Amino acid sequence: MKAFNDLADFSTDEIRELIALADRLDAHPEPDALKGKVLSLLFLSPSLRTLASFQAAMTRLGGGSFVISPEMSIHGIESRPGIVMDGAAAEHIREAIPVIASYGDAIGIRAFAERKNLEHDMAEVEFHSMTELIDTPYINMESAMNHPCQSLADWKTLDDFAIPANDGKFVLSWAYHPMALPLAVPAATLHMAAHRGMDVTVLRPEGFELPDPLMKKAAAAADAAGGSITETDDRTAAMQDAHVIYAKSWSSTRHYGDRLADQKLREELLDWCVDEPWFDNAKDDCRFMHCLPVRRGVVVADSILDGPRSVVIPEARNRMLAQMAVLHQMLGGSR
Amino acid sequence: MKAFNDLADFSTDEIRELIALADRLDAHPEPDALKGKVLSLLFLSPSLRTLASFQAAMTRLGGGSFVISPEMSIHGIESRPGIVMDGAAAEHIREAIPVIASYGDAIGIRAFAERKNLEHDMAEVEFHSMTELIDTPYINMESAMNHPCQSLADWKTLDDFAIPANDGKFVLSWAYHPMALPLAVPAATLHMAAHRGMDVTVLRPEGFELPDPLMKKAAAAADAAGGSITETDDRTAAMQDAHVIYAKSWSSTRHYGDRLADQKLREELLDWCVDEPWFDNAKDDCRFMHCLPVRRGVVVADSILDGPRSVVIPEARNRMLAQMAVLHQMLGGSR
Amino acid sequence: MKAFNDLADFSTDEIRELIALADRLDAHPEPDALKGKVLSLLFLSPSLRTLASFQAAMTRLGGGSFVISPEMSIHGIESRPGIVMDGAAAEHIREAIPVIASYGDAIGIRAFAERKNLEHDMAEVEFHSMTELIDTPYINMESAMNHPCQSLADWKTLDDFAIPANDGKFVLSWAYHPMALPLAVPAATLHMAAHRGMDVTVLRPEGFELPDPLMKKAAAAADAAGGSITETDDRTAAMQDAHVIYAKSWSSTRHYGDRLADQKLREELLDWCVDEPWFDNAKDDCRFMHCLPVRRGVVVADSILDGPRSVVIPEARNRMLAQMAVLHQMLGGSR
Repeated sequence: MKAFNDLADFSTDEIRELIALADRLDAHPEPDALKGKVLSLLFLSPSLRTLASFQAAMTRLGGGSFVISPEMSIHGIESRPGIVMDGAAAEHIREAIPVIASYGDAIGIRAFAERKNLEHDMAEVEFHSMTELIDTPYINMESAMNHPCQSLADWKTLDDFAIPANDGKFVLSWAYHPMALPLAVPAATLHMAAHRGMDVTVLRPEGFELPDPLMKKAAAAADAAGGSITETDDRTAAMQDAHVIYAKSWSSTRHYGDRLADQKLREELLDWCVDEPWFDNAKDDCRFMHCLPVRRGVVVADSILDGPRSVVIPEARNRMLAQMAVLHQMLGGSR
Repeated sequence: MKAFNDLADFSTDEIRELIALADRLDAHPEPDALKGKVLSLLFLSPSLRTLASFQAAMTRLGGGSFVISPEMSIHGIESRPGIVMDGAAAEHIREAIPVIASYGDAIGIRAFAERKNLEHDMAEVEFHSMTELIDTPYINMESAMNHPCQSLADWKTLDDFAIPANDGKFVLSWAYHPMALPLAVPAATLHMAAHRGMDVTVLRPEGFELPDPLMKKAAAAADAAGGSITETDDRTAAMQDAHVIYAKSWSSTRHYGDRLADQKLREELLDWCVDEPWFDNAKDDCRFMHCLPVRRGVVVADSILDGPRSVVIPEARNRMLAQMAVLHQMLGGSR
Repeated sequence: MKAFNDLADFSTDEIRELIALADRLDAHPEPDALKGKVLSLLFLSPSLRTLASFQAAMTRLGGGSFVISPEMSIHGIESRPGIVMDGAAAEHIREAIPVIASYGDAIGIRAFAERKNLEHDMAEVEFHSMTELIDTPYINMESAMNHPCQSLADWKTLDDFAIPANDGKFVLSWAYHPMALPLAVPAATLHMAAHRGMDVTVLRPEGFELPDPLMKKAAAAADAAGGSITETDDRTAAMQDAHVIYAKSWSSTRHYGDRLADQKLREELLDWCVDEPWFDNAKDDCRFMHCLPVRRGVVVADSILDGPRSVVIPEARNRMLAQMAVLHQMLGGSR
């Protein structure tokens, strides 16, 4: 495996193999699998779960990792091409990326979207400009529009809780949040559930439609896997017979990059906080998922998070297990 | 071992066994003992020795660790229960703790006292509210009123320098410091010396009495172990025939949580800086201990710290060895 | 090996042995060589390559490391001798260094020059004041006037690209930079190239002469190794038949510690940006080296950095390999 950049690049069988490997490594640790191997971790955006789970994953497989973030370099890292560097930044990404990659057997990179222009972010301009500098195997630890490690962990979580693939109803719901957040998780989650063959409903208020290319790509994946994609702002219809609701806030796509217009739209939507009444017509054991971090009382009520519907803690632990499987395949632990 | 939370939870024999294990691991390294095991390290308060010594300890036993502090999460970690999270913090301790714990085989947590209300801090409300969220074995890396790793290292240091247990005189002395510091180290140290069976004198100015429940708990431990507890503000009486003085500054308990009143009391006490005259009637080879960091020329004179009485460097190294013993027992290195 | 403080302390044979070991460890990993061994890493100055490459090096050899920087201690670390610590800093270097060293089998220390007084910095007063506190083997990760890890990596890089030792022409060139930078890299590089037996030309504008003692020490090394040292501000003469140009900016030595005077001198020197015309009379395959980080369009043109002359990425990777060899010898991996 040369790159783990998009779960859509992997077939259902390949994904099932990764999840089986994750389960095996959980049940039967292999502390010599990646002995002496190094994972370089570059965080151009903040992190808690990703930071912790990748370090833990490498240790469990007998290797190690190191973490670099921009504030560790002198005065930050410049990324604009062709610039005369007479300002604050003393280092350019064109040196930093190949050098950091050269110390590892693989590199993980996290870089959130700029959130100025939707087409620019959809094209993953920044992320590609970095990965094209290196031959080292790399892992997308969340880019402008993707988060494949989260999606692999989420697929495994759906399996762990015996949520059906075909004929399973998956609701991806927008939720209120005081800030305009990236589209990476909803984009990746939409495709993951479609790829798994589920009947996916995107529940969001007007102005927060997911971009058309994402919807079309997901619809094609759903078609191929025997599932479906629908989109609505009708909560009751969306939640009807749902097996799982995956809550996540994201930016307005109608006003992408326009914070004030986004803010104005969103401040009317404070009731988009997932709470028990949402589940009235869902399956009795309908589950609640979220990638974390989550704002209590804002995105979701405490009673849901602390109650039996919530699977957010095992979902977060699956990040580590999913990444162990990816690292094991990528770095030659499977022999 | 499911928790290492309070040295008082362990019998003298159990403590001696831990110290023997620490000595054995120092003499005969076991770099495979915790192969592939992970220690999660959560620092809600700053650290140098604890941060370094736990990471080194895990490496020496063949495992690894990762470090999380609040600034690594987006906008910090909220800890108030039931709050609507529409402010800065994007993550609540109720998710952060179980997730971080889930990546490790054990978790170490450091969280200093709030220092607003003494009863609140004595009850370890914050620390308990975190550890009750998890089933993972945990280590107290300094809570509001405890620091068991420091105390285990200190007990070992007393042994290493052949300071008698029964009939050994231990002076725990308040010292001047420009700020009102937590009670965790004096509380833990008082009980440790009592538990070891020493004759303990708490030497402190008026207004800095250690809380009554701590004194009573220590007196009971001293009784059981054949030692004693006394308290005084008379330096000459306290130091008479002392084998060791353990210096530490702490908040005024009379004005706990009231910085101005504490400040007013403390600014009359600049002569509480341990210096050679303090040792006039002590044992000739009376030792000087301190948990570090220590302010030179404020808490203790340079000549004492740099002279033969001081054991602060081996005392700090014992942190690593003591923690190796705890981790070895907790994580199954002993087979 | 008790210290890796100055490449000048090692004979040519010893250096060749270290480089051969680095090559061997690259070709034939030894992930058990330093099993359970710990490297303490103390960064009193910022870092990216050094931070990453030392951690990666220890992992590749089966050991581990931990990183300490001043902001991790409470309110920073004091270094002035004899001071009454009633200000912000809660810890003195006299405790911090021995404690941090005591957790490792070796310690790496980075502390840049104060850049107030040249004689003071040349005498390495700060670095010696730290290393004299410990018996632990130590590695200079860049001090006021030295950077032996960079120099060992650079020597290896010259070998890797088959740049001749005797009769090889090495140009160490000053370059423009908006700030007055330390002399550590130029000082170490000058001596390294001389020690390797090369014909070394120091190309710099007036006011940026390297200090006389450094030049004399390098001339003696060049003499012994069959090379030579010259100094000039004539770019055409310097670059004639050059095999390699090593660019680096440094402070004015005429106005050392005087930022305004240095600034005034340097602002006339913006054309000291290495570009293709510099190579007009150099060897056809003349290489470009730099220790990184480098300011694009300021120190060197993009076309050079991105072109075939540049060896900066393999040069940076050699930091890791060179350090693996040093650690392997220092910590007993060679048995």
